[in-house]
Order: sequence, then structure tokens, then C-alpha cells
Amino acid sequence: MKRLLSLALLAVLTLPLMAQQKRQFTLEQLIYGGTEYWNYAPEYQQYGFWGDCLVRLDVEAAVMLQDEKGKPVEQTLFTADDLSAAGFGRALNIMAATFPDGAKPQALVYTTEGTMLYDWQTKQAVWTLPRVEGELEFCLASRSTAFERDHNLFVRTADGRDHQVSRDGSRELVYGKSVHRDEFGISKGTFWSPKGNLLAFYRMDQSMVTDYPQVNIALPNLEGKDGSRIAQLEPDKYPMAGETSHKVTVGIFDPATDRTVYLQAGDPTDRYFTNIAWSPDEATVYMIELPRTQDKAELVAYDARTGARLRVLYTETNPKYVHPVHPITFLPWDDTKFIYQSERDGYNHLYLFDVERGEQRQLTSGAFVVTDILGFNAKDKSVVIASHENSPVRTNFWTVSVKNGKRQMLDGGEGVHSGVLSQGGAFIADRWASPDVVRRYDVLNVTHPERLRTLHDCPDPWAGFEVPEITGGSIKAADGTTDLYYRLIKPTGFDPAKKYPAIVYVYGGPGVRNVEETRNWDARGWEIYMAQLGYVVFVLDNRGSSDRGFAFETATFRHLGDQEMADQMQGVAYLKSLPYVDADRLGVHGWSFGGFMTTNLMLTYPDVFKVGVAGGPVIDWRYYEVMYGERYMDTPQENPEGYEQSSLLRKAGNLKGRLQVIIGYNDPVCVPQHSLAFMRACEDAGTQPDFFLYPGDGHNMMGRDRVHLHERITRYFEDYLK
Amino acid sequence: MKRLLSLALLAVLTLPLMAQQKRQFTLEQLIYGGTEYWNYAPEYQQYGFWGDCLVRLDVEAAVMLQDEKGKPVEQTLFTADDLSAAGFGRALNIMAATFPDGAKPQALVYTTEGTMLYDWQTKQAVWTLPRVEGELEFCLASRSTAFERDHNLFVRTADGRDHQVSRDGSRELVYGKSVHRDEFGISKGTFWSPKGNLLAFYRMDQSMVTDYPQVNIALPNLEGKDGSRIAQLEPDKYPMAGETSHKVTVGIFDPATDRTVYLQAGDPTDRYFTNIAWSPDEATVYMIELPRTQDKAELVAYDARTGARLRVLYTETNPKYVHPVHPITFLPWDDTKFIYQSERDGYNHLYLFDVERGEQRQLTSGAFVVTDILGFNAKDKSVVIASHENSPVRTNFWTVSVKNGKRQMLDGGEGVHSGVLSQGGAFIADRWASPDVVRRYDVLNVTHPERLRTLHDCPDPWAGFEVPEITGGSIKAADGTTDLYYRLIKPTGFDPAKKYPAIVYVYGGPGVRNVEETRNWDARGWEIYMAQLGYVVFVLDNRGSSDRGFAFETATFRHLGDQEMADQMQGVAYLKSLPYVDADRLGVHGWSFGGFMTTNLMLTYPDVFKVGVAGGPVIDWRYYEVMYGERYMDTPQENPEGYEQSSLLRKAGNLKGRLQVIIGYNDPVCVPQHSLAFMRACEDAGTQPDFFLYPGDGHNMMGRDRVHLHERITRYFEDYLK
Repeated sequence: MKRLLSLALLAVLTLPLMAQQKRQFTLEQLIYGGTEYWNYAPEYQQYGFWGDCLVRLDVEAAVMLQDEKGKPVEQTLFTADDLSAAGFGRALNIMAATFPDGAKPQALVYTTEGTMLYDWQTKQAVWTLPRVEGELEFCLASRSTAFERDHNLFVRTADGRDHQVSRDGSRELVYGKSVHRDEFGISKGTFWSPKGNLLAFYRMDQSMVTDYPQVNIALPNLEGKDGSRIAQLEPDKYPMAGETSHKVTVGIFDPATDRTVYLQAGDPTDRYFTNIAWSPDEATVYMIELPRTQDKAELVAYDARTGARLRVLYTETNPKYVHPVHPITFLPWDDTKFIYQSERDGYNHLYLFDVERGEQRQLTSGAFVVTDILGFNAKDKSVVIASHENSPVRTNFWTVSVKNGKRQMLDGGEGVHSGVLSQGGAFIADRWASPDVVRRYDVLNVTHPERLRTLHDCPDPWAGFEVPEITGGSIKAADGTTDLYYRLIKPTGFDPAKKYPAIVYVYGGPGVRNVEETRNWDARGWEIYMAQLGYVVFVLDNRGSSDRGFAFETATFRHLGDQEMADQMQGVAYLKSLPYVDADRLGVHGWSFGGFMTTNLMLTYPDVFKVGVAGGPVIDWRYYEVMYGERYMDTPQENPEGYEQSSLLRKAGNLKGRLQVIIGYNDPVCVPQHSLAFMRACEDAGTQPDFFLYPGDGHNMMGRDRVHLHERITRYFEDYLK
Repeated sequence: MKRLLSLALLAVLTLPLMAQQKRQFTLEQLIYGGTEYWNYAPEYQQYGFWGDCLVRLDVEAAVMLQDEKGKPVEQTLFTADDLSAAGFGRALNIMAATFPDGAKPQALVYTTEGTMLYDWQTKQAVWTLPRVEGELEFCLASRSTAFERDHNLFVRTADGRDHQVSRDGSRELVYGKSVHRDEFGISKGTFWSPKGNLLAFYRMDQSMVTDYPQVNIALPNLEGKDGSRIAQLEPDKYPMAGETSHKVTVGIFDPATDRTVYLQAGDPTDRYFTNIAWSPDEATVYMIELPRTQDKAELVAYDARTGARLRVLYTETNPKYVHPVHPITFLPWDDTKFIYQSERDGYNHLYLFDVERGEQRQLTSGAFVVTDILGFNAKDKSVVIASHENSPVRTNFWTVSVKNGKRQMLDGGEGVHSGVLSQGGAFIADRWASPDVVRRYDVLNVTHPERLRTLHDCPDPWAGFEVPEITGGSIKAADGTTDLYYRLIKPTGFDPAKKYPAIVYVYGGPGVRNVEETRNWDARGWEIYMAQLGYVVFVLDNRGSSDRGFAFETATFRHLGDQEMADQMQGVAYLKSLPYVDADRLGVHGWSFGGFMTTNLMLTYPDVFKVGVAGGPVIDWRYYEVMYGERYMDTPQENPEGYEQSSLLRKAGNLKGRLQVIIGYNDPVCVPQHSLAFMRACEDAGTQPDFFLYPGDGHNMMGRDRVHLHERITRYFEDYLK
């Protein structure tokens, strides 16, 4: 008996040791692009709706999980084999299937041949459309496809006929592509009318824009593009802040007449045409128009048939900037009403508009940001939104009554949710996570939130691994009042008696945030890896970052870097207050705006940070582009001091610690000139940064290069911070 | 007494300690471009000849030191103030003065206004010529100047008239400039006839050559060239091995008629026209012509007035290559005879030719290289040469009798000499050094070598500094028979009981050698610096390097890198045999061909070399240019295995140690594609080199950047090899 007892005691005593013998992560497991990354990511599931019926879309089958009333079922609608048997090539991944009509047993699916509308009762194709090369946008309503060929825009109608929209397209005269460098929420250049009879499209004349001379080196296969092995020039039109910008116009093409009218918006010089939207009856096109100064936004209606400018429905001005990124959204039950989103009261909120009489009333309000409109519930006359109302670090779903603005929360109120609303508006397929929930798939009932049904609770993919402790919290900003949210990762095998080196990971720029109350507080895989190597990792969303409202974001206006750094230094003070952080071994790392922050922190606080790795950094805002740059900095002509003070070229001589700058050599966003000029400035100032580049890569490393990159970043901290 | 004795003993014992307290060098003192470099370089003096009278040319005065018989005098001929008083601007540095006519008290000097022929007896200008903008070449005989304006070639005659030679000059059609990428000894593109009546010039059509897209980033002054701050494309015609090359022709311009005739050399496609020379009577132009294969050289005479091809005087072929770099030189006493230099017997030697009858006889022979013709002594009918006859690591002066080939050594026979021969051929102003002589200025008597007179023995500029021990020696090459010369630098404060890290500095390519029996065995300042930091430095001239004859140089033919590395590994074996060398801490560094060698050694012997720094490396000979590349490698089409085997892209996955590649970002010699492609290859192979660049710099860093560079190189070895 005694012997048994002591064995049991031994077992208890060895538990901590066994915990330390848990598995260790590799970069191949933690970094997106790693060979084992997907083996250790939370399970991925895809859900869609056929009308209000919930369907799980697997790789090989579509399975209905509940009917339109929400009653659980389990019925396979069709399989990949069914689709392949329909005689239009082999079925591709079913996860991309959609259900155009809740009243018909039909799914829009993709095969090796093209697009097919498939009837799972007859097991036949309703129709098929062969793949169109250069496809830009397909319109289901008319089965027309906009596509590009040799720089020109074409439309292929359902009858198979090709209609040439433009004839003078070139590298300089661009048709049907995203414009304004993807700012203002723009991500494409074609916009089908609701019934698919007309195509609105962007035309961009960038002949007057200076080329940035990007160079494509011939890669190790020793063969360049044109049969030569010599490096090739690949010029890219890049309008830098304060320089001549491109001119955009909007055309409306009618395949029935093969004619185009252009919206009569006036001289396009130094103007932005954004957020294109159609009226449900296809008669009117709306856009939001801004002057280059970005201090005014006008919602303007145009006659789609003639291009005539009809009226200005709304004008918003702000001495800093107005930043519309959401096209108007019509109420499905009333073609005369739409929702406009604006930050004018300090937070992004919804406003109800009438197509004739303009603004009607504000639908949501409060010191929180509405982030998304999922859709509408026509029965209840409500709009379904996502917002940060519960907490700036949470995203939850709510209904908002269009009649009285009353809001009702739809999910459990915790964590960060994303989802898709059923066509009828009755259900949401909800994917969410929190520090306590790895990932959970729920289906939410929009009218009866209490009838929440959990579809799948994902197991922890990191079971068996030694995972560091990750906590979230908040500190005060440098202004003494604003709450800033952070996450803190302790080294694995944490010993409170030890002193650890600490790394600040930072982004800090507009439109992005890093800390959310989701799985691991949204920690990136590399942070886990560094914790495993014995580093404290700290991430703080400073003022200027996203989703905290206009005042928070614009605290940095015209002087990018200053307030952001002041806040990050609050984070550093907090870090230094932790007894287990070695204040003599602080590092910093960030990419893009975070590269700007990293470099800036290394140069501004040379005695605080010993080691930094700055990726794709902005070095001088004069080298950045017009749309983003001038929004936050005005032009160099208007704000010379701001540009001068924020230029890191001027601070190159301050470098004391070890700073490695890393770029994608073909970065079209933050062009190589930034980092190359910084190297030159350091050389002239007699300081010694380190530098690395990835030829052929853009603003971010992807795939295998991403693993290589993080091995590199890790090595640098291991070489100099440990 | 006992106390005194012990004090004396103490003094003896502390001597080594005191020696260690000598001054330490900084990079600013040791690196060319450093702020104090010139304070610690051997004293520089400039000597010239007025006829056979020796003149010392100081910054502020010209002082005659001996008369035409060699009798010592000390007479100031003129001062800078004298020149400035002549009414043609302020005198520039007198060191550049020359004496056109031994019979007249006249010096050709330069002032802020231009060129002046000054008479120091009348203290007046004989004539003056204002500076010509874009000057290419001035001809004293006719006082005509060839110059460039807007890509076109002009001649300004003594009467001040401008004659336009070309009208269609452009970036692609180049007049009056060096051609064939400065290979074959070409360094300029204009060649005045002896009396200055005619101008031979190169015309190069490179419109068919691919552009390499060099990019000039706007530098930190934030202003680019064209008033834009955006990076500028600066394309550079760069014919890569095996690709389409340029076409060169040679014109003869006559300012008297304003007409040009072109030499009727036939189709210039894939041909090299080199070593242009005039007959003394201006009637004939000679060039050496090679096909692109470089396996044949023809010396061809042309009628300068008509351009007619007169005759081929000599043809030399070699299955490897023929490499003429010396234009023919006429005997001053016989206009029908000239000297041709050839490696055809295995070493560069002199051959006497007759303008009508061709080759007469070989003038020098033996297993040594003649490096230079200084000139002639007409009285003795001898030619004055420099050669390695005494030793491959020495350069000495000799006379060679044109009649019987008899040679007589003119200097003391040690060290490395350079000098200038007096116009009459009686004296040489000799500057030389050896491991025992910092720098000495002698005047040699060509007909009476025993009458050597030392003018100045330079004091050691490093007195008071702790200078490492530098020795020279030889080992056997990998072939077991060939002697290879090295220098070895021990760490300062050397302790034979210690183990030191060692760095191999290497070049190893054709046309260059690093080890000469001169001051410090030609050690570079950085080597001294590294010795001071505690490194052994070793430098070995492997087979393939210069001045050892054709077989030695061509041991590497078609497979650059292989034999060179085999020899360097012999050096490594020797290093490892030294008891004080730590074989686990070997580094390697080199630039250009030495960068190729460094990278190759790191990749081929990853377990031997722990740290390397490769500057401006050739990575793949397919990326190098036609003239040099195809001489040593043939074309990629002819020698695919050789190119493939020597490509470092293929070995990128072998990297184990730390390798930093450093380039001038605007390197026009070894274009950035080399190193960028290598980075890409390493990224693809999963290895981690380091990389750095100097925007705006070319193939070598100069000025301040050179100090920055060596600080950087040093830091890398200190970080990883120490």
C-alpha cells in the first residue's frame, strides 16, 4: 500500500515536468504558407442558405441541416459526383456553391468547364456557361460576363455573343478595373445592374501619372519574360502624394445597343468617384464623390440611360477628412429607401435616406462603430448589422428596427463573430471565437435569438502542444484618458523569477487593429513561436488604429507617427513595470505602417529598443500614394512640416541598436524607394542598419517566402536580443 | 646597486607592454576615403622631365633637380604665383604640369580658365586656350580639342572654331567614347594623329543591345532629376554573354575639310576593333581586330585619308583566346618599325615589326611577363621596359637593345617600381617600395644604371602605431607544381600560444593580382585593421590571376571558379597547418570576381568557411557581359556545362555559414540582377544569406561609403567569427 501511495505521489510530482515535455511548434506549423499550417489551424466549415434553409457546404457534398423554419434535418442535397455526372466537366470544391432561388432546388456551382446551374432533383444542368478567359464579373440575373482582353473591356451575353465595350484600352487607359488604388472601399471596376441589363464600369486615364520603375529580375530559371534572361522593366503608374494623379470616369454599357454613356460628373481632375450603387429598378446610378482634398463627400444620383446628373442627395464635410467606404444599400421592401453609412457623429452609423427627399433619420447611434450590414429581415423590417457595441474588442450581431431604431443582440454577446444572413433574413450562419472558444459554428435565429443552435464546436488544434499564456487587457493612452487594448504573451514554461527579453509587435496605422477578444486575442503564429523561444510578446492598438471612432483615428492627423509612438511608449512603460521583463532587452517588429512605426521607434527611442525588424516600411510619406497619404497627411505642399517631421530619412543618424529592414523587392504599395532611400540616408549619416529583400514579392511575403521571412526575423532577434 | 639592477630589469620586462601601448588604427586612417587616410599614407611626390632635366612638381612650384646630364641642381622654374600672374586665371595644382619641348623654357599648365603654355623666362603665356566644356581629348600638337555636346562629337580647332563631327548621336549611337565595355585595353574613344591634323574616333551603335533597367532612387534631398521625387529609370545598354552585342566602327575626321571617312573594316557585327594607333606620318591607322570568338587577332593597316584597308600585318590565333591590350609603338628613330606585344610564346613579350614586311624578330623572351613600355632611348637604340623578370612578385626596369635584344636592369632589382622616362630617354623618375622600403623616389640613369640617385626616402607614416607582422611566401598550387604567392598577416600583439580566427581575402580572377613584393606585401588597410582586431589575414594569388603568363591565366578557361578554388583550398590547408590558426573560425571576403570566389567558397566548402562577405559578386556568368565573359567562358550556347557548373544559383541551397552579399545598387559592371537572383535562389532553397546595398554606388564603394562599407564588413566578422 505504501509503495502504491508513493507511486501516486511521484505521478503528481512529475506532472509539471510532463507538461514541459509537450510538443513544440515549428514555423512550418505556425506560419501561413508553412507546409503543416493547415494541420494546426482551427477546423474550417462553410455554411450557406437555400432560401432560409441552412446548408453545410463540404468539399464533396452540400448537406441541408435545417429547414426554412429552423427545424433540424440532415439531408445531402447533392455530391461532387452528382455534379460531375451532369456532363459539364468535373465538379470543383462545393464550398463555393450558392443557391440563387429559395423556391427552386437549384445550386450555382463551378466545374472544370465553367459555371453551371444545377437542379438536384432532376440531377441535370439547368444551364451551363463555359469559362470566360479574363473574367471580371459574372451577373447571374442576365448570365452576362464582363471580361478583359488586351487591356479592353468586353461583355459576353448569355447567348454567347461578345460585345466590345472599349477599344483604346492600354496600360495607361484602364477599363473595368479597380481605381483610386483600392482606397474608399473600392475593390473592383465593374458593377452589374440588379437585373444585369447594364454594366457600370470605371475608366481610368493614368497617362499623366509618373511611372515608378519596378524591375523584374530574371529568376533562377534564367529565362525572362521576353525570351531574354536580362532583368525587365515593369513600370507601374504610382501617383505620389502631391503629384499629378489619374482621372477616373464612369461609363454605363448597354449590351442590347452596344452603346456606352458616361456619367456627366464634370471634370474628373483631382476627384474621386467611389461607392458605385444601382437603384433596384436599374434607372439610377449612385456614387459618392470627393474632391482630392477629401474634406467633402457628396452622394450623387445619375440617370443610368443618359448619364445625366440628377441630384445631390447628401453632402458631408469635415475639416480633416470624410472617408466613405460603404455603397448605399436599398431596403428590400421599399425601393425608395436606402441606408447610408457615415462617421459624422464620431462613429460609423446607419442613416435612412429617401431617393427623392434625401436623409430621413439616423438609425443607429452611440459611442461604438457599426462595422457591417449583413442584410435585412423583410418580415420584421429590420436591418441586420455587426457592431462593437458590447466592447471595442468584440464584434456581435444585432437587428436594428428600421421603424424605431430598436436594437436586439442576436448572438451570445462574447467574442468576435462573422457570418452570413439567409436570403429571407431569418437566420445567420455564425462563425465565432473568443479567448475561451477556439472556433464555434452557430446558427442564429434573427427573430428569436434565444433559439441559438450550435452546429459545431471545433476542437483545439493545438492540444498536446505547449501553448503560452495569452492575456488581453487595456491601459491608458498618452492622452491619459483613452483606453487602449493590448495582448500580452508570456514565454512558455514561464518562470516569474526570471527576466525575459520582450518584443513589441506593432501596426498602429489607420484601418487596422491587432487586438480582438477572439481566439488567443488574435495572436499571430509568430508570436506563439517567439514565446516558445523565451520572449514576452506585447501588442497594443494605439490611437490612430481602426474601429474606435473618428476622434481616435484622427488623433494622428497630419503628423503620422507622433501620437502612435506616444501610445506605444505607454505600452513600453507597462511592459517595464512587469517584474519578469528585462528592460534592457526590448525589441520591436512590424510591417507596412508597422514597419514605419518600428523604424520610427528605433530612431526616436534609440536607448529603449535594442533590436527591430521593419518590414515594407513607409520611410517618407512623400513617397506614398495620393489617396491614402493625402487623407491622413494632406499634401506635402499643404503640410510641409508634417511631412518633414515624420520623415525617417531625417532621423537616420539616430540609429543605435540593430535594425533590419526587409522588403518585397517588387512592392507596388510601399515602393522600394522608401527603404532604399533610408539605406542611403543611413550610409550618409554613418549608421549601420541591416537590409534584406525578396525579389518578385510584393508588399507582403506569401507562401514559402512567409516561412523563410519569419525564420529570418526570428534569427535576427535570436542573434541580437537574446 | 641591486635596486638599480632590478629597475633596469623591470624596464626590459615592461618593454613588450609598452609596445602594446602603441597607437591603434581607425578605419578613417586605413581606408581610402577616410577622413585621415592621407595623413597616414606614404608621402606623395610628383616628378617630371623637361627634356632630360628632372623636375619636381610640387603643388606650388616646379623645381628642377638635375640638368640634362644628370648633374644635381636645385632651381625653382616657376611657382603657382608666377602662373597666376600671367593673366589667365588662378593656377591649379602644378603637379599636373608637363614640358612639351626640352629646348624651350615652357610648361603646359592648367588654370581656372583653361590650358596655358607658359614661358618661365619671359613669365608670359605663349598661348592660352579657354576650357572646353565636355572635353574628351586635347591635342597639344595642333591645339585642337575633341569634345562632346548632346551626345555628339565636336572638334574645336586652335582658331576657336567648332567643327561638328556627328549629328545623330544618342544614348544608342555613341561617338567618341570608349567601346567594348573598356575591354582590350580600351579606355577612351578619340585618338589624335601625331600632328593633330586628324582625329580617329569610335562610333558605337548599341541600339540592338538589351537595356538593363538600372534605377536611380531619389536621394534623401527628396528631389529627383526631373523635378520629380520619384525614382528614375536609368537604362544601361548591357550585352550579356551570348546575347546580341553592339557594333563599332572607326571614323577619321579632318577638321580642315569637315569630312569624316570610316575605316573600311567590313561588317562590324560581332567584331572587336581595338588598340588604335597612328603612324608617325599620320598616313596610316592601325588597329587590332578580333572576331567575337576572340580566338584570333589581326593587326590591320588602313589608309587614314580614304579609309581603305591596306593590309594585314600580323595574325595570331589561339584555341582559347588572344588578348591584345597594347597598341603598337613606333620606334622614334625609325618610322618604318614598331613594337607589337604578344603572349603567343606563353608570356607577354615584345616583337619588332616593319610596316611593310611585318614581323622582324622577337625582342624579349623568357618565362616572365613584360608589363609595360616606358619609352625609348634613341641614342642607344633601346626600349625601356618594366617586367617581372627578377621575380613574379617584383616589377623592375630594364633596357632592351633593339639591335640584339640584350637586356640591362636599371634599378636595384628589388621591390615594385613605377616610373616615367625622360623625353630624351636618359633618365627615369622611379617610385618604388618593398617590404623593407616604405616608398623611395630615385632617379635612374638609363645608360649608366650604377649612377642611381635617391631623391627622397619617405619616412614610415605608421611610426608609433602598432603594425602587425606581414610576411610573403609561396606554396604549391593544386596542380602540385605551380608556385603561388601569398601574404600572411599576424594579429598585432601576436601570441603564438593563442588560437586566432583567420580571414582569407581573395580576388582570384583574370587581370588582377594581390600579392607583390612592395610595402606590406601590398596589404590593404582593412587587413591591417583586422589584424589589429585579432585576426590572421591570408591572401593568395591563385591560378587564373594576372602576370604569370598564358598557361597560368588560362588554367581556369571555360570553368571559372574551379581551379581558383582548388588553389585557395591549398592556401586554407596551409593556414590550418599554422598552430595559431583556429580552423573552426575561418572567414572569407572578396569583391567582384572575389565576391564570386567568396560566395563560391562558402557554398562549395560549407564546413570550412564559417563567415563570408561577398561584394559585387558575379553569381552567374550568363548575367555578365559579352567581352570579358565570353573570353574566359565562351558563350552559354558553346559552353552550357561550364556556365551551368559555375552558376552559384545552383548551389544556393548549400549555404550553412553566415554570408553577407553587398552591392552598389547601381553597379553597371556586375549588375544587381546577380545578387538579387541569388537572394531569390536562396529564398527558394530555404537558406539565409544576408544582404546589403549602397544606392547610387557602382561596382566599388568610394569616398565615405568605403569607410562605411569596411565598418560593415568588420562588424559582420566581429558578430559571427569572433
